[in-house]
Amino acid sequence: MAGALSPATTTLRLIKPFSATALRRLSLFHKPKTPLSISLPPFSSTAASVPQSRRAFCSVISSAITSGEATKTETLEKKVGEFRKKIKIVDIKGGPDEGLNLLGETVVVRGWVRTLRVQRSVTFIEVNDGSCLSNMQCVMSSDAEGYDQVESGLISTGASAWMQGTVVSSPGSKQKIELKVEKLITIGKSDPSFPIQKKRVSREFLRTKAHLRPRTNTFGAVARVRNALAYATHRFFQENGFVWISSPIVTAADCEGAGEQFCVTTLVPTSGEAGDSPVNAIPKTEDGLIDWSQDFFGKPAFLTVSGQLNAEAYATALTDVYTFGPTFRAENSNTSRHLAEFWMIEPELSFADLDDDMACAAAYLQYVVEYVLENCKEDMDFFNTWIEKGIIKRLSDVAEKNFVQLTYTDAVELLLKAKKNFEFPVQWGCDLQSEHERYITEEEFGGCPVIIRDYPKEIKPFYMRQNDDGKTVAAMDMLVPRVGELIGGSQREERLDYLEERLDELKLNKESFWWYLDLRRYGSVPHAGFGLGFERLVQFATGIENIRDAIPFPRTPGSAEF
Amino acid sequence: MAGALSPATTTLRLIKPFSATALRRLSLFHKPKTPLSISLPPFSSTAASVPQSRRAFCSVISSAITSGEATKTETLEKKVGEFRKKIKIVDIKGGPDEGLNLLGETVVVRGWVRTLRVQRSVTFIEVNDGSCLSNMQCVMSSDAEGYDQVESGLISTGASAWMQGTVVSSPGSKQKIELKVEKLITIGKSDPSFPIQKKRVSREFLRTKAHLRPRTNTFGAVARVRNALAYATHRFFQENGFVWISSPIVTAADCEGAGEQFCVTTLVPTSGEAGDSPVNAIPKTEDGLIDWSQDFFGKPAFLTVSGQLNAEAYATALTDVYTFGPTFRAENSNTSRHLAEFWMIEPELSFADLDDDMACAAAYLQYVVEYVLENCKEDMDFFNTWIEKGIIKRLSDVAEKNFVQLTYTDAVELLLKAKKNFEFPVQWGCDLQSEHERYITEEEFGGCPVIIRDYPKEIKPFYMRQNDDGKTVAAMDMLVPRVGELIGGSQREERLDYLEERLDELKLNKESFWWYLDLRRYGSVPHAGFGLGFERLVQFATGIENIRDAIPFPRTPGSAEF
Repeated sequence: MAGALSPATTTLRLIKPFSATALRRLSLFHKPKTPLSISLPPFSSTAASVPQSRRAFCSVISSAITSGEATKTETLEKKVGEFRKKIKIVDIKGGPDEGLNLLGETVVVRGWVRTLRVQRSVTFIEVNDGSCLSNMQCVMSSDAEGYDQVESGLISTGASAWMQGTVVSSPGSKQKIELKVEKLITIGKSDPSFPIQKKRVSREFLRTKAHLRPRTNTFGAVARVRNALAYATHRFFQENGFVWISSPIVTAADCEGAGEQFCVTTLVPTSGEAGDSPVNAIPKTEDGLIDWSQDFFGKPAFLTVSGQLNAEAYATALTDVYTFGPTFRAENSNTSRHLAEFWMIEPELSFADLDDDMACAAAYLQYVVEYVLENCKEDMDFFNTWIEKGIIKRLSDVAEKNFVQLTYTDAVELLLKAKKNFEFPVQWGCDLQSEHERYITEEEFGGCPVIIRDYPKEIKPFYMRQNDDGKTVAAMDMLVPRVGELIGGSQREERLDYLEERLDELKLNKESFWWYLDLRRYGSVPHAGFGLGFERLVQFATGIENIRDAIPFPRTPGSAEF
Repeated sequence: MAGALSPATTTLRLIKPFSATALRRLSLFHKPKTPLSISLPPFSSTAASVPQSRRAFCSVISSAITSGEATKTETLEKKVGEFRKKIKIVDIKGGPDEGLNLLGETVVVRGWVRTLRVQRSVTFIEVNDGSCLSNMQCVMSSDAEGYDQVESGLISTGASAWMQGTVVSSPGSKQKIELKVEKLITIGKSDPSFPIQKKRVSREFLRTKAHLRPRTNTFGAVARVRNALAYATHRFFQENGFVWISSPIVTAADCEGAGEQFCVTTLVPTSGEAGDSPVNAIPKTEDGLIDWSQDFFGKPAFLTVSGQLNAEAYATALTDVYTFGPTFRAENSNTSRHLAEFWMIEPELSFADLDDDMACAAAYLQYVVEYVLENCKEDMDFFNTWIEKGIIKRLSDVAEKNFVQLTYTDAVELLLKAKKNFEFPVQWGCDLQSEHERYITEEEFGGCPVIIRDYPKEIKPFYMRQNDDGKTVAAMDMLVPRVGELIGGSQREERLDYLEERLDELKLNKESFWWYLDLRRYGSVPHAGFGLGFERLVQFATGIENIRDAIPFPRTPGSAEF
């Protein structure tokens, strides 16, 4: 097997040498007529000044297929080269006229071969570089330089290639332009065992190939939309004066009280991969208990389930803050809605009440949805066609419609009146189930996001602010179609005596909350916040059904592969 | 003690009721003459439409001191209110004329009292809301509404307050404007035990008050600059077409081979805070070994030390990606340079070699430094005066100067020639120590960042690309003054046979790297990347000496408090 897999550069060594000058020039546009839509540095200067190469041939090829954006400094000159934005397929095809502005230009494309169709007169090679959903259709005739690599089978699905050619208009209906290839270099061949061939593969199968699945249309699109949602998140909060803070991941505190947490320890002896760890090597006290004083942090430590309490500390100093980081649940839930490791966004607003909190949550969701609709058009069209029909309409509605709010009490009344048999019966005081939430947002309010507020205090955590009715707390859950609960938030209890009373009622140890209580001792302010599971948002925005497909490397019970 | 700490709202209950209409109007600017430098929604509309309050008095006050940005919907109307950017001190004072454009305007300030000076005729209250370093100087005469709260001592350092008044020019030299207070409301009083009084407190002491330290000048400024660095990081990579990916935090793989990692497990029984966990309750095999098959992930799992390998998988699909997330080291290092939990930025570039990598790292650093110099002027002036004299000059140099690069071999030669006694002697093949790195960047190149490249392969990890000399690898470390190594990167070994050979040489288990090797089996491409410890960057940009002061809640041996 190893013999069959010759290294990538073997290929390169087969090709006859050509000058570094030529190669470097090819990797850039040649005298562009019209500027690209994005800001790019001028092309001519670096291409003109070609450094003296003192390296072996292999390096020369290497510098051809690498970005070429840096000025190579291989002399004794000691300057670091200039970094320049890499020109990708999205830069060629992603403009308003889908590349027609570049007709007649010489361009270089670098990417991975998605399909290869050898016809009598020409060969079609579809290349993708992940910068956008669409491939560059490259058309190669048998007289083009490097055609022997097509003939010999070096170029196949999964291989990486460097192609230089002319932009010509495409007779096909799928794209406006295509690349008439003048020169092809195979960068790395693909072993015939490449598991993602043209034929459709299931998403279950692809989870076992999490390292390769971003090379598919679906997972490439998910990755780009996920990225857009993350960036839009930062933009929304930054534009509104929020400060990003990193809440701690390892913590000796348990935010919600007795959550299902992972223990973080250095007491457990593991000899790397073998995993042969004797139990009796764990330090213990005279009573046979684990001696936590010998652990790294001197006491039991856990992976955080929420950064909220920490965010509150910073909100009561900087007014508005947000976290965006990983959180963890050691729940043994093997469902399409749960991950053991997921990213959370937790804004916290001072001088704010529940109304402000709801308004912020609604504005946030509308902002990121709008951002994705505007910036990921091609990917959203793909989801609309292949993953969830109508998702663009659904998201556009969210971006435009006013959000509905109603109290928990009204919601229960509404559910009791509903002509529908629920699996879980409803009564005031019960937690709403997914079926109830989806009924409300999908059926009662026709797909409009709904915020339910003022929940019974018994079903909500200690830190939520008690309403004057003595029965409910200033909590809110935002429900969206398909996903159900997307956001959960509350106004926090800022009154020291109320908070201490609540901790006592719930038999939580006040001592361990000393610093959290301090925030109420020294200049307490009304404040509120919410939490949003980022992967749920990705599901909501892409229509992807299983949350394991909404994160690059999912962690679930029994699975921490990759 | 508990008796002395009356809840915050007791204060509120003492104040005589006034109409919601009046309060809501006060919380917004009144007919601004000139628009603020940032985009703000119009002020008049919501202030005019005052909802009918059906709540108790306490809520009315609450809606006055909360942001008021949301339209309150307390009738049965079921719309969620509009979210509007909160107006903060930075919006009043942060413009180019430092607030002079607002002379004569009525504004509201909400924040925490930093100092209080009661003079014969007037009282000066310095209020800070964390939106910027400077306080709003509020001047209150004894006939202003709420002055009784000053007299009674309710308003003291640490208390939170709501103040409405007129912007007047300040006779003081420290600021251009001040607030002539017309009305004061104490939101939350501060217990006299408030630990951060005017007198200077040490940073060591403040680490024990990590929940309150953001209320100091230094930590407020660090938080804002840290935020700016994070946002600039996202902007740089997004503008250059990189996709943010979240690499996994919990992993069964060990990137660098036998690093010092934290174990993540659910096998260890802990009953919450008590921590009484019997060792013999841990599931074991017949041989007395820990039965990992019963653990959450079915095998030993660890906190990640780097997301690089995962990033490589995505880079070889999407071309350019970056991670920005927490990473961990279970090293027992109690130094000012080490954290057990820190954030890393790890870009990975496909079709790129070491030159591209260095160019990207240099451009990145220059971008974020420039961003901070432009967007955090006030905070940087503060650091320049109080933390590290000359830091602005040092950073400006970095933003403007060309970075120097030299090979490891040249660096060693240079150190051997240096007229300096190093603690650790230098010879080719040794790892460079901090003293060597600082000598090179600080003395040899006068404060210019220096990249050292092409290190001996023996002192670098398995994944780095072997140079043709057979002795060195395409690694690079960027050294900066004061901090030393800030960035470490390399071109990755993309040749399958070279990589497998190296794994064998280092006796690493090839099986466990199956997916990493797959990236070389299927369309391998030259690629490169680097890693940057985010807290080191914060140190570099602020001059803060101890890394524990560069992250909100530091985790170090023996400490996972908060």
